[in-house]
Amino acid sequence: MNNKKEKEIKQMQRLKSYFKTHLPKIEKNIDIIINEIDPYVRDIARHILKSGGKRLRPMLCILNARAFGYRNDDIYPLSCVLEFIHSATLLHDDIIDNANLRRGNKAAHTIFGETKTILTGDALLALSNQIVTRYENISLLKCLSDAIYKTACGEILEIAKMEKSYISTEEYLEIITGKTAYLIQFSCESGAILAGVEGKKLQSAREFGINLGIAFQLVDDVLDYSFEHNTGKPIGGDLREGKITLPLILYLDTLSTQEKKDLLGQIKSNRLTKELQDQIIKDINKKGILSQAIEKSEMYLNKARDALSFFPNSLETEILEDVIFFVKKRDK
Amino acid sequence: MNNKKEKEIKQMQRLKSYFKTHLPKIEKNIDIIINEIDPYVRDIARHILKSGGKRLRPMLCILNARAFGYRNDDIYPLSCVLEFIHSATLLHDDIIDNANLRRGNKAAHTIFGETKTILTGDALLALSNQIVTRYENISLLKCLSDAIYKTACGEILEIAKMEKSYISTEEYLEIITGKTAYLIQFSCESGAILAGVEGKKLQSAREFGINLGIAFQLVDDVLDYSFEHNTGKPIGGDLREGKITLPLILYLDTLSTQEKKDLLGQIKSNRLTKELQDQIIKDINKKGILSQAIEKSEMYLNKARDALSFFPNSLETEILEDVIFFVKKRDK
Repeated sequence: MNNKKEKEIKQMQRLKSYFKTHLPKIEKNIDIIINEIDPYVRDIARHILKSGGKRLRPMLCILNARAFGYRNDDIYPLSCVLEFIHSATLLHDDIIDNANLRRGNKAAHTIFGETKTILTGDALLALSNQIVTRYENISLLKCLSDAIYKTACGEILEIAKMEKSYISTEEYLEIITGKTAYLIQFSCESGAILAGVEGKKLQSAREFGINLGIAFQLVDDVLDYSFEHNTGKPIGGDLREGKITLPLILYLDTLSTQEKKDLLGQIKSNRLTKELQDQIIKDINKKGILSQAIEKSEMYLNKARDALSFFPNSLETEILEDVIFFVKKRDK
Repeated sequence: MNNKKEKEIKQMQRLKSYFKTHLPKIEKNIDIIINEIDPYVRDIARHILKSGGKRLRPMLCILNARAFGYRNDDIYPLSCVLEFIHSATLLHDDIIDNANLRRGNKAAHTIFGETKTILTGDALLALSNQIVTRYENISLLKCLSDAIYKTACGEILEIAKMEKSYISTEEYLEIITGKTAYLIQFSCESGAILAGVEGKKLQSAREFGINLGIAFQLVDDVLDYSFEHNTGKPIGGDLREGKITLPLILYLDTLSTQEKKDLLGQIKSNRLTKELQDQIIKDINKKGILSQAIEKSEMYLNKARDALSFFPNSLETEILEDVIFFVKKRDK
């Protein structure tokens, strides 16, 4: 085994062992908050919150706080707020996308109905605000409301852009910044704010988060098309659902204007044959398009790594480097 | 004209003239906030916000602040937040109720689609939080998140209870407290908090608000059935839509257990004939049921009036009395 490989294995082990220490505390705090919830909202909240999320956002909050020397256990409820906000957006997303499954389980709205699911999303967002007010920290509250606002606007931007005939790479990056990366930025930022961090250091926590968030989504997009990775999901799901993501955008850019127009028309009107779908997925894998998308994601991961240079030397700063490595290497 | 009548006319004139002074400033501030909104959310926000609301909630906020001596113009953006929260709940409500009209105009989701309408509701709630953080007042933020959380839970409670076979008067009051009165309470409370009010006085602003809010909804329920008032809307709309409100609950209480069960079954399964609907509406008007409901609303209005005794003597405290009178006498 060469040195690089050995270092990689060590990184993943260190990351896993760190997560293992904190995950039970995150779960315990999620349970405490669920039990505080109004009984009419609790079942739907439990359904979405206990459906096997990776708790990446809470972990990022804890890691950022501890990287900056914060050791108080009141970080845990704050870290859980991130999972509550994330869950609220998933509840609304699944209605919007008309999705029947979420993490392999039935989507909440298919069990509880759309009405209660919309309102539970609202209640979880309001509850998140309630919990954060307990910290009596205005900066934290300002960032929280910014993150929720930008996430909602990001999702509307996505819908508006998807209605157009074509999305450029720049527009796509704007969409995923809004709908995914801002909340990951806030996950990092909130931990740093609780640790009392300000100025350039706080800015670096933000930059770490936003770039990690964009990369996280781009890697997700690549995994969806990749023959090389075994995610357990059918390959090309995004294309089959008519979702336009970076690999498809880069593929469309290799076509002539007319070909591009025809293909987009077929995708949007749901007229793409199974054969053509398979051909596009093959082409995306063959024509170096996935490598281009991976390159893009690595550019953002490098920016996230650069931001870490402003963090203090600490175990948690190292673990945040492992997180970058995990996002780069993840296969599901 | 007798003295009482003369006094009543004066009260209404004073109220109207007070509203006339402040309404343009409220509208101006609503426009400023709408123009701040992300362009993809702005059109839907404008549609719901400029559809002819009475601005009761902003007025209550201003009246409470000024009653306690607060004269700063920064009350206006805060007062508008109440209208933004109210509008967000209306956007979600109309989807939930599958309503096509709102204040005589097309409901937002019928023009912009459910997806964007749900997300605009989310964005408006987040924006409300953003605006309130600018006041850097933790008490204000705590009350705001409480109000939004309780409103969302109140709506879920309504749906859950409506699925049951029967609702008691107590349960009905619990529902309208959640879905209507808490936001009216917060309208009053937020003005008082900005005025720096605490303790018993703040409690009295809250009590004024919650009781006014419950009465406001009960009067609304009565107007829907009343032959005596000309609201411009068809009489008995709630019954025809299968909505259970206080007059119907009181009417059901006059029936035998079997009759009650049969009638509820017909209402819930949408099998109520036009003839039976008309008969029930007539009975509710004849059998003194509306007077019972009016009595109930007046009980809450009296509680609101009692709360005002802890307010300082001021023009605005008098106007708040006029508001009680307006709720009692309103006919649309």
